[in-house]
Amino acid sequence: MSRFWSKTICGLSPYVPGEQPRVDDLVKLNTNENPYDPSPRVVEAIAQEAAQRLRLYPEPESDSVRRAVCRHHGVSPEQVFVGNGSDEVLAHVFRALLQHEAPILFPDVTYTFYPVFARLYGIAYETVALDAHFNVRVDDYVRPNGGIVLANPNAPTGLALPIAQIERLLQRNRDSVVVVDEAYVDFGAESAVPLVGRYDNLLVVHTLSKARSLAGLRVGFAMGHPELVEGLERVKNSFNSYPLDRLAIVGAVAALEDQDHFERTRQSIMITRTVVTEGLRELGFEVLPSCANFVFARHPQHDARALLRGLREARILVRHFSAPRIEQFLRISIGTDYDAVALLGALRLLVPK
Amino acid sequence: MSRFWSKTICGLSPYVPGEQPRVDDLVKLNTNENPYDPSPRVVEAIAQEAAQRLRLYPEPESDSVRRAVCRHHGVSPEQVFVGNGSDEVLAHVFRALLQHEAPILFPDVTYTFYPVFARLYGIAYETVALDAHFNVRVDDYVRPNGGIVLANPNAPTGLALPIAQIERLLQRNRDSVVVVDEAYVDFGAESAVPLVGRYDNLLVVHTLSKARSLAGLRVGFAMGHPELVEGLERVKNSFNSYPLDRLAIVGAVAALEDQDHFERTRQSIMITRTVVTEGLRELGFEVLPSCANFVFARHPQHDARALLRGLREARILVRHFSAPRIEQFLRISIGTDYDAVALLGALRLLVPK
Repeated sequence: MSRFWSKTICGLSPYVPGEQPRVDDLVKLNTNENPYDPSPRVVEAIAQEAAQRLRLYPEPESDSVRRAVCRHHGVSPEQVFVGNGSDEVLAHVFRALLQHEAPILFPDVTYTFYPVFARLYGIAYETVALDAHFNVRVDDYVRPNGGIVLANPNAPTGLALPIAQIERLLQRNRDSVVVVDEAYVDFGAESAVPLVGRYDNLLVVHTLSKARSLAGLRVGFAMGHPELVEGLERVKNSFNSYPLDRLAIVGAVAALEDQDHFERTRQSIMITRTVVTEGLRELGFEVLPSCANFVFARHPQHDARALLRGLREARILVRHFSAPRIEQFLRISIGTDYDAVALLGALRLLVPK
Repeated sequence: MSRFWSKTICGLSPYVPGEQPRVDDLVKLNTNENPYDPSPRVVEAIAQEAAQRLRLYPEPESDSVRRAVCRHHGVSPEQVFVGNGSDEVLAHVFRALLQHEAPILFPDVTYTFYPVFARLYGIAYETVALDAHFNVRVDDYVRPNGGIVLANPNAPTGLALPIAQIERLLQRNRDSVVVVDEAYVDFGAESAVPLVGRYDNLLVVHTLSKARSLAGLRVGFAMGHPELVEGLERVKNSFNSYPLDRLAIVGAVAALEDQDHFERTRQSIMITRTVVTEGLRELGFEVLPSCANFVFARHPQHDARALLRGLREARILVRHFSAPRIEQFLRISIGTDYDAVALLGALRLLVPK
């Protein structure tokens, strides 16, 4: 606490990202990174751009990324907003589209950055309980609200809503913005992007950090009605004219254009997810059916914190959240098949049958 | 205007950056980019990092950049805050350190992003008139305020305050944060960094966009008392855990470490600035004495807008601001000697003796 801080700073409790260890010989299954390298075209595009134009400012509106998003998702450029990772995009969404009198709504168990954004901008929020099986019940969101934020698939559960449920939510909340955060959608869930042209209150947020293997590059984008995008642009242009550097721009375009690489790597991850899920179940774990690049699992006889420590001793990092309802769960990112063998091997020692 | 926008969005009037043309055969002297490429070490470091680790998240606190800043500026890591360009750093400064009851102060003629940041966060501000020669008079800032923001050298004038004046300002405003934005300091002004250890109310902001030739990479940082840095970290971690991508991090470190390249290129720019200044004066221009990588000049007989158009026809871009007191000035970035010849050649036709 400092007398120089703005008054509201003291009330902020920052988001805590998963540990980024400085040692290399760990099996790192704690931050949902992709185990496969990005498309080689990304690396080439970056090396070329770095050698040529770094002294010049980048495109302020990341137009070439917007065009690549349009080609991939069948939307038009005025329906696309690009930011420095989907967290920055979400932060601008809260400031531009969710700061109203009524509280915004999101699930009690979801991405823990949502309440942090709300507090940053002084936005009231209410959490809506997931059902006993950790599913979102969209009818619970039919009440006065200043906006709704859903991760689909949800994090850290991995559970996904079908598009019909998203559409029902949109229809029953015509006067507020429904933000669907699809960070993990490419690992087996249905995207709401086909609804973007039909609902002016829908905003779908994507990232290149997960399915495109570019956590280290920081690119995210939102797709929605041009009026929503314009609101985001107003905030972005009052904050930072050039949020994406030149390398992120060319890297994002190259990643979005390599459809083969994208398909191959996400299919591999989904196959490994089946191996991990079955292996965990054989060891007695309850594993929620995941549509993401992680699984969320608990063991009826073994404490999650003890398992976390045991895995850490075996040089395997997974993530644990000290939060109501989920404190006995571990969130385990899906890595390579090698990672899966290491994980299941360590757990066989920690959870003897 | 959309019913989905947060109420305060309508009142925002975004910052307008200089034009980033898509054609290549222009002499681009409108956005103060460095005419020289960054250090070759930057390009190497980026190519190497791109080939290795893009699938993994970057360091959340850009620790390696902070350490490089410490080596270069003689500060300690807890005195350094790093962001995605100095505009992002400044945005967080406004939110974290300048949102108080009293209005903040900055000059009537200065970087036009300051009032934009203030409006984004609902911060009241008052502008303080520069004197008749466009100099800051620090005694005019001795009045109740919620903070002071000075660009030094100032933009778009290029005029600099000596460090003794900055120190006087700090001493007479012990209860508010004084932000000194030194984006252009390396082109001949005195830096306030040596005062950082002595004044807990000083925050000095730097960028790699100008003297390090990295406008395309988006790296800025602030140096100040650890309490100020902690306030900034709180906001940053409520906004975006990973503001710098992996390539910006390794590029920034490489740039800060190549002192020879830095010295050589900034000296070249200062020499060319003398050539441009003298050439303009010979043509009858009034040129403010610049400590930046641009000059600010007006001609007593020729309208600035007409000159802007004439230069544009000659495929030379410079910047003009339609603002009180400075509407007859042009801001001309310092490029290579070739750019200087092209500029002065075109002006000889537009401003015949």
